[in-house]
Amino acid sequence: MEGVIPMLYEDILSDKLNEECGVFGVYSPGVENIAQMVYFGLIALQHRGQESAGIASYTEGKIQYYKEMGLARDVFNDRILKRLEGDISIGHVRYSTTGESYLTNAQPLVVKYKGGSIALAHNGNLVNADKIRNELEDNGSIFQTSIDSEVIANLIARYYKYGYKEAIIKAVKEIRGAFALTIICEDKLIGVRDPNGLRPLCIGKLDNGYILASESCALNVVGAEFVRDVAPGEIVIIDDNGVESTIYDDSKKKALCSFEFVYFSRPDSVLDGKSVYESRIEAGKILAKSYPVEADVVMAVPDSGTVAAIGYAEESGIPFRQGLIKNKYLGRTFIEPSQKLRELMVKLKLSVLKENVDGKRIILIDDSIVRGTTSKRIVDMLKQAGAKEVHIRVSSPPVKYSCYFGIDTPTRDQLIASVNSLEDIRKSIGADSIGYLGVDGLIKSIEIKGCDLCTACFEGEYPMKVPKTGNKYLFDKVEITSDDGDEVAICK
Amino acid sequence: MEGVIPMLYEDILSDKLNEECGVFGVYSPGVENIAQMVYFGLIALQHRGQESAGIASYTEGKIQYYKEMGLARDVFNDRILKRLEGDISIGHVRYSTTGESYLTNAQPLVVKYKGGSIALAHNGNLVNADKIRNELEDNGSIFQTSIDSEVIANLIARYYKYGYKEAIIKAVKEIRGAFALTIICEDKLIGVRDPNGLRPLCIGKLDNGYILASESCALNVVGAEFVRDVAPGEIVIIDDNGVESTIYDDSKKKALCSFEFVYFSRPDSVLDGKSVYESRIEAGKILAKSYPVEADVVMAVPDSGTVAAIGYAEESGIPFRQGLIKNKYLGRTFIEPSQKLRELMVKLKLSVLKENVDGKRIILIDDSIVRGTTSKRIVDMLKQAGAKEVHIRVSSPPVKYSCYFGIDTPTRDQLIASVNSLEDIRKSIGADSIGYLGVDGLIKSIEIKGCDLCTACFEGEYPMKVPKTGNKYLFDKVEITSDDGDEVAICK
Amino acid sequence: MEGVIPMLYEDILSDKLNEECGVFGVYSPGVENIAQMVYFGLIALQHRGQESAGIASYTEGKIQYYKEMGLARDVFNDRILKRLEGDISIGHVRYSTTGESYLTNAQPLVVKYKGGSIALAHNGNLVNADKIRNELEDNGSIFQTSIDSEVIANLIARYYKYGYKEAIIKAVKEIRGAFALTIICEDKLIGVRDPNGLRPLCIGKLDNGYILASESCALNVVGAEFVRDVAPGEIVIIDDNGVESTIYDDSKKKALCSFEFVYFSRPDSVLDGKSVYESRIEAGKILAKSYPVEADVVMAVPDSGTVAAIGYAEESGIPFRQGLIKNKYLGRTFIEPSQKLRELMVKLKLSVLKENVDGKRIILIDDSIVRGTTSKRIVDMLKQAGAKEVHIRVSSPPVKYSCYFGIDTPTRDQLIASVNSLEDIRKSIGADSIGYLGVDGLIKSIEIKGCDLCTACFEGEYPMKVPKTGNKYLFDKVEITSDDGDEVAICK
Amino acid sequence: MEGVIPMLYEDILSDKLNEECGVFGVYSPGVENIAQMVYFGLIALQHRGQESAGIASYTEGKIQYYKEMGLARDVFNDRILKRLEGDISIGHVRYSTTGESYLTNAQPLVVKYKGGSIALAHNGNLVNADKIRNELEDNGSIFQTSIDSEVIANLIARYYKYGYKEAIIKAVKEIRGAFALTIICEDKLIGVRDPNGLRPLCIGKLDNGYILASESCALNVVGAEFVRDVAPGEIVIIDDNGVESTIYDDSKKKALCSFEFVYFSRPDSVLDGKSVYESRIEAGKILAKSYPVEADVVMAVPDSGTVAAIGYAEESGIPFRQGLIKNKYLGRTFIEPSQKLRELMVKLKLSVLKENVDGKRIILIDDSIVRGTTSKRIVDMLKQAGAKEVHIRVSSPPVKYSCYFGIDTPTRDQLIASVNSLEDIRKSIGADSIGYLGVDGLIKSIEIKGCDLCTACFEGEYPMKVPKTGNKYLFDKVEITSDDGDEVAICK
Repeated sequence: MEGVIPMLYEDILSDKLNEECGVFGVYSPGVENIAQMVYFGLIALQHRGQESAGIASYTEGKIQYYKEMGLARDVFNDRILKRLEGDISIGHVRYSTTGESYLTNAQPLVVKYKGGSIALAHNGNLVNADKIRNELEDNGSIFQTSIDSEVIANLIARYYKYGYKEAIIKAVKEIRGAFALTIICEDKLIGVRDPNGLRPLCIGKLDNGYILASESCALNVVGAEFVRDVAPGEIVIIDDNGVESTIYDDSKKKALCSFEFVYFSRPDSVLDGKSVYESRIEAGKILAKSYPVEADVVMAVPDSGTVAAIGYAEESGIPFRQGLIKNKYLGRTFIEPSQKLRELMVKLKLSVLKENVDGKRIILIDDSIVRGTTSKRIVDMLKQAGAKEVHIRVSSPPVKYSCYFGIDTPTRDQLIASVNSLEDIRKSIGADSIGYLGVDGLIKSIEIKGCDLCTACFEGEYPMKVPKTGNKYLFDKVEITSDDGDEVAICK
Repeated sequence: MEGVIPMLYEDILSDKLNEECGVFGVYSPGVENIAQMVYFGLIALQHRGQESAGIASYTEGKIQYYKEMGLARDVFNDRILKRLEGDISIGHVRYSTTGESYLTNAQPLVVKYKGGSIALAHNGNLVNADKIRNELEDNGSIFQTSIDSEVIANLIARYYKYGYKEAIIKAVKEIRGAFALTIICEDKLIGVRDPNGLRPLCIGKLDNGYILASESCALNVVGAEFVRDVAPGEIVIIDDNGVESTIYDDSKKKALCSFEFVYFSRPDSVLDGKSVYESRIEAGKILAKSYPVEADVVMAVPDSGTVAAIGYAEESGIPFRQGLIKNKYLGRTFIEPSQKLRELMVKLKLSVLKENVDGKRIILIDDSIVRGTTSKRIVDMLKQAGAKEVHIRVSSPPVKYSCYFGIDTPTRDQLIASVNSLEDIRKSIGADSIGYLGVDGLIKSIEIKGCDLCTACFEGEYPMKVPKTGNKYLFDKVEITSDDGDEVAICK
Repeated sequence: MEGVIPMLYEDILSDKLNEECGVFGVYSPGVENIAQMVYFGLIALQHRGQESAGIASYTEGKIQYYKEMGLARDVFNDRILKRLEGDISIGHVRYSTTGESYLTNAQPLVVKYKGGSIALAHNGNLVNADKIRNELEDNGSIFQTSIDSEVIANLIARYYKYGYKEAIIKAVKEIRGAFALTIICEDKLIGVRDPNGLRPLCIGKLDNGYILASESCALNVVGAEFVRDVAPGEIVIIDDNGVESTIYDDSKKKALCSFEFVYFSRPDSVLDGKSVYESRIEAGKILAKSYPVEADVVMAVPDSGTVAAIGYAEESGIPFRQGLIKNKYLGRTFIEPSQKLRELMVKLKLSVLKENVDGKRIILIDDSIVRGTTSKRIVDMLKQAGAKEVHIRVSSPPVKYSCYFGIDTPTRDQLIASVNSLEDIRKSIGADSIGYLGVDGLIKSIEIKGCDLCTACFEGEYPMKVPKTGNKYLFDKVEITSDDGDEVAICK
Repeated sequence: MEGVIPMLYEDILSDKLNEECGVFGVYSPGVENIAQMVYFGLIALQHRGQESAGIASYTEGKIQYYKEMGLARDVFNDRILKRLEGDISIGHVRYSTTGESYLTNAQPLVVKYKGGSIALAHNGNLVNADKIRNELEDNGSIFQTSIDSEVIANLIARYYKYGYKEAIIKAVKEIRGAFALTIICEDKLIGVRDPNGLRPLCIGKLDNGYILASESCALNVVGAEFVRDVAPGEIVIIDDNGVESTIYDDSKKKALCSFEFVYFSRPDSVLDGKSVYESRIEAGKILAKSYPVEADVVMAVPDSGTVAAIGYAEESGIPFRQGLIKNKYLGRTFIEPSQKLRELMVKLKLSVLKENVDGKRIILIDDSIVRGTTSKRIVDMLKQAGAKEVHIRVSSPPVKYSCYFGIDTPTRDQLIASVNSLEDIRKSIGADSIGYLGVDGLIKSIEIKGCDLCTACFEGEYPMKVPKTGNKYLFDKVEITSDDGDEVAICK
């Protein structure tokens, strides 16, 4: 069930925010290899979560599922996928967080309720899950996991007598937060996006069926054509009659997570009409205009800073060069390095290309800085390799506030930009200068109406009430606070 | 999660009824290695179930658990047991049945409800689980497993406002069937036995704490002394104040499963005051008196027939000899034998000791005959090895009726004694004579008041109303029938 | 390759000598499932070694093999067996000893030499392996394992120019010690037994082919008929022409290992014409005559003492009862028990049947006593359970000398009978009396001419010169001594 | 040992030549964690081989080792590394090729010979291994693997009487081909490079010891400083006295494999004085001068074409953009995709960034083209995504000849450039134009004297006689031909 828990040096050495999940669904009765299609989709979405992978399939009134800790490629094999064949199938990949009962929390969640069986996969995070969980427990419900999906399934079950569609709508109207859901219910594939549209979800078309996916990059790999994004507050019900759309809530402002563009999504995805790649090139260019500096080369912290670095280089006319090589074989490792080697691990993950660094004035592009720890190590490495100057340019604004919508942010005291001035950050990192993309620049780079993006982690203004305290992801430590008190900020 | 599902040739070649589970619990605050104690207890009870093993432990208000498919010795290791240390711990072993979601159904079940966390381990089977499940679903409950424990946990949660003790009592009063339960709730270890006492459960005393166990054979291995059996209809609550006893239902006739003596329990266990070993020796002796025959040797179908064979030999004066050797290395295997080898598999499992068989008139003792398939193969083997005569003596009565209380019986048409006369059985098995222990003889051998034993599988008179139809163990296929119609027999 | 090395409590708690290996071979061109046949054979011979299992098969001039640590049932699956199909196949099971490179030492050994490929499986131990190894190294040979098979393969390769048959004969004439070999060479299956016949090897007949096996019990499970034992000093070459026999050395006295009857072989095997079961019954009877004592019950240390106990009971007229129940689910475990639980482990492995012990005068039959540690624990347990007297009777003579022919004996200072008087043994074990079968009694029980058995471990008179010192099984610590000096005893 | 053999889609979808191995060694008596250092080194060299990883360590006269199929990070853990601590340690990573006995062929090879124990790790390929093997077999040697290391170990053993140093020199003088060796012998760490210096090997300095490594990129990760390359024909013996150098053969022309620069080595390595990164930038620039074309963007086939693409972009002034995104989660997978999905797999591995492709004239840089199959798929994808023109530029010359020195080249009829004209290649790939770097350009880019590079795969002029026929890597199929006949080309 659990095995030895490997150290994920990617994480230890990483200073990035982490997405919680990716979802994928196929409706294609009669097709062979529907589970293989979901498997392909999960590999395409694997960057959104590497902790666990799961697939649930519907056939002849029955839902079967398989989920396990690990990457999709390691979790599934032919034998398992064959047993998951059917007419409708959904899958889920989950980000690796800590916690006692790993596998229990893997998705999709499959439950039996009065109306039959239901499978749910959820990307996002609810802010009122604890409150609802509390109310449901008041009525005698029990919970076996710490995932929001179980709350949602309970709500649907409670409303089953209204019929599956009304039950789902009533359920999603009751929950608050970020959610992109794929659901198998009766013989339908259902997609739901939260009223703010915080998490992306799009629709693709097959020759004989439909796809739901967190990102458009997962459509091509199963031969699907992009149709459109699911709208904020929309529920789509897919069956033999095609896609039936219902807007169940159009009262909320749109607030697509801007970090999807900064870091989470794959560059070849298009979210709500905007190319992720283009937004990053543009962010690099705006950064070059806002924070120019004389230098010999532009380089990126690989891989996430590369696109913005190319944009910066183009705008500034300073050549782009690779100065840091990332070892792609490090991954999860099962050793506890000695102190001496621990210090060398950053060199095992990232090695300096001395030829491009020695004697050079360097502009180093990173997509974001969270704690600042890795940035300092990288600047040290570059200086040791002979860099004359290192000018850090960050292609997103300073991360100052926690996210409550599915991103695993550290507490505010660990966010370097939350507790330090720009000059203090520069000093602590050891850079010769530092420049962050402004929120305006970020909005401009994404070219989505600014008020349609969530920039709460930069500005602290959340699109809805959020809990005042609590570690949102560790079930056992959740603090339930009263309704009145559980907010820290009022959305505009 | 699942891996390749091995063929269990033990089962393929076996013609025995199978127990569902064994439970074990320790209350011993401050002790080190409480999880190791449960681990030892599970190994001692492993004969009651080899499908999965699990342990849940309570410490500082929190319950942690680990469960996995396989034998206890393969499921647990030091690292896992260390993480399960605490003040109270329960464990469970489960019999290997078929089904889609193996691991999901492993026990103990750990859930959160309004009153906190609760862990349950259940041995037995409920006859009204479907009906309650149905009612709970009417009220919006969802189910993630097909085990009765989830039904019981839901009932406890529904009554939580009455306090944990009252909630558990109300819950167990609502369920009907066989159940020996160990529960961790708040900071208590709780044991419950059904009003008929169908499944055994006993209490042991440690220097600093208490044990609950399905059989007394599991007490010695953790250094505990036998105290007493939990009574039918009793709930015991163990905490720092010792053992608090409540009889929640004394209206039912006692009906300890007589097959616990025939086959399930270990010979070194004492159930409700009667030694299992003694009962088997006695059964053999009574059989010798009832069905004497001139012969050269008495031999057993190993290992389950051995004790009765020794008793038969003693009573008859005919020497006991081993005629069949069981290969203990067969176990689970991952191959699909060719047709030719499949026929030889019975010889791989059981080999004939030609010296003791050739030219001999043999009395062959088996503890029970279910389908009769293996018996025929064994008689064939003995005759091929030169046996002059093979007289089968069975140390239990003919199995004619299905069990609804936790034993995995085949349907009645597969029970050889249900559809055949004694002479037909003899012929189909190829024996020279056959004799079964009578129900009276069985009762006499156990020396428990006859009316205190359940002999439903022999006589068809159940201690409570039982469902008319349905495969009781495969969740997906459960047929829910109306209240009035779901009985086939009225208990006396 | 290695994984976590589990503690084998069977071993920790066991006080038995351990066999090194079992071999099995099939010649049956055109048959389907030859590898499955070998797999069945290895399961039947698994009692001879549980460390590793391997199969090598010949087809179209090529030898393929697979070997791995673990029991045959865990090592092999359909996919692997399918890849091992062919015309000739040999297999090997190996006893679990300690050492650095476990898998490297697994057999069969497959090598390429001038004459092609060859596969060898060896049961036994050479006494001049080090010397030959030394000579071969003088000529530039390298060694990759510490098994004797590699020495034998090198010798065959050195003599290849004489043709395969002559090469093998020259090789086996050069080695001294115990060896039962199965070899695939060119398109032949070859069996060889050492000139003293220390290790058993027999021939079976299939409809379309032949079998070689360490014990006759492995013939039935593949549908073969026993033909005859391979004679000491005989080489049999099996091909389409049948079995060609050559006696390559008839100058040595026969010396079949008597411990094969005492403990190693399965009771349903017949070795060199004598039934193992009969010999054990007889040993029990002789013991009863030699060391009678008034008592209430005869019981055995399971499972190895059971047959002799039945014999003793029959001869003495004192009833046979089971007093100790062995837990068959203990096996290998991955935990390190706490001190407190470690003391209880003997109870986890063996539990006392109090009913048969309390207040009784007991005759306890063990097949052999090596270090005496387990005997003391068992006597303690019986006394604690109320035994009035415990009289130990051992169905083999005192083990006083090390074996150099494939049995893993401890050093002499650890052999309780080597350094203690009978009375001291009795006291240290805590028994009320003790009696060992005499060497004469043993010989009589086996009914093979006394001078045809090896009784060196009892009497110290070896059938050949043996090394003076050294742990024979740990390659890295082998002491090479000169030819003249490396003997401690002269055989008669 | 073997388990299910996963499909490596990286390979299926890849059209690259593959290196055979990487070697790493540490001499540092008294250091803690020497095995961890080798582990780090192997991760840094993992790009040279992903089939198996192994480490052998010397301590107190004994060599212990562990090797297994898989990536270093999966093969090793703390427990294993701890058992491999010592004073000297070598490691090896091996490329994934097909073959029956995978693990048997893993390295380092550890053997016992007259002089003691020896561990060898080899990068390269011998051209006269079969001939030597044949001769050794004539003298009675046996072989258990199909790796050249076993041949070399046999030769050393044959010459042991001359002392370890002379024995190694005599051995390496006898072998012909490419070899970079690290050896543990007695208490020395020894490095050897073949007389042509075909495979790289360099020396690093620790505070308290030395490193040998295939590439300089593996020195930094253990905190070592680059000292120098081992020279062609040099043997270095490292012990407490430092590095003792002997040139055992200075008669051969230097011929460092030029493909190390083109593809194999990591860009942050420096080989024989030349930066791999610089050589690739330079190759891109020369290519831009040789084959200019009007276009909108320069893009690379990731990841291997990226550096040259940056060089091409810089020289041409045409902007560098990413047009193809590589999925890093594909890796090894255990499924057999349906036909439909198989066609989509190239999209799962590489996805097109439509924004950068649609309507664009593209210069696509690949580092090399072997069979041409992947190139065609990529051009198709780009055209489907709207590319107006696709101009392929290859930063190495056409690969026309097989390599016999450790590179896994297909047979000549599968090399697209071997059997087609440039125009035919262009057509078959579907490109609008194609241009290869010339051999002169390649030599210029590397800035090593042309005659000091091996360019045999481009020009067919080998630095030594090579075998005429045969699949060099599959042991079972090796064709041994006579000495006179086994060449196809004479080196200059």
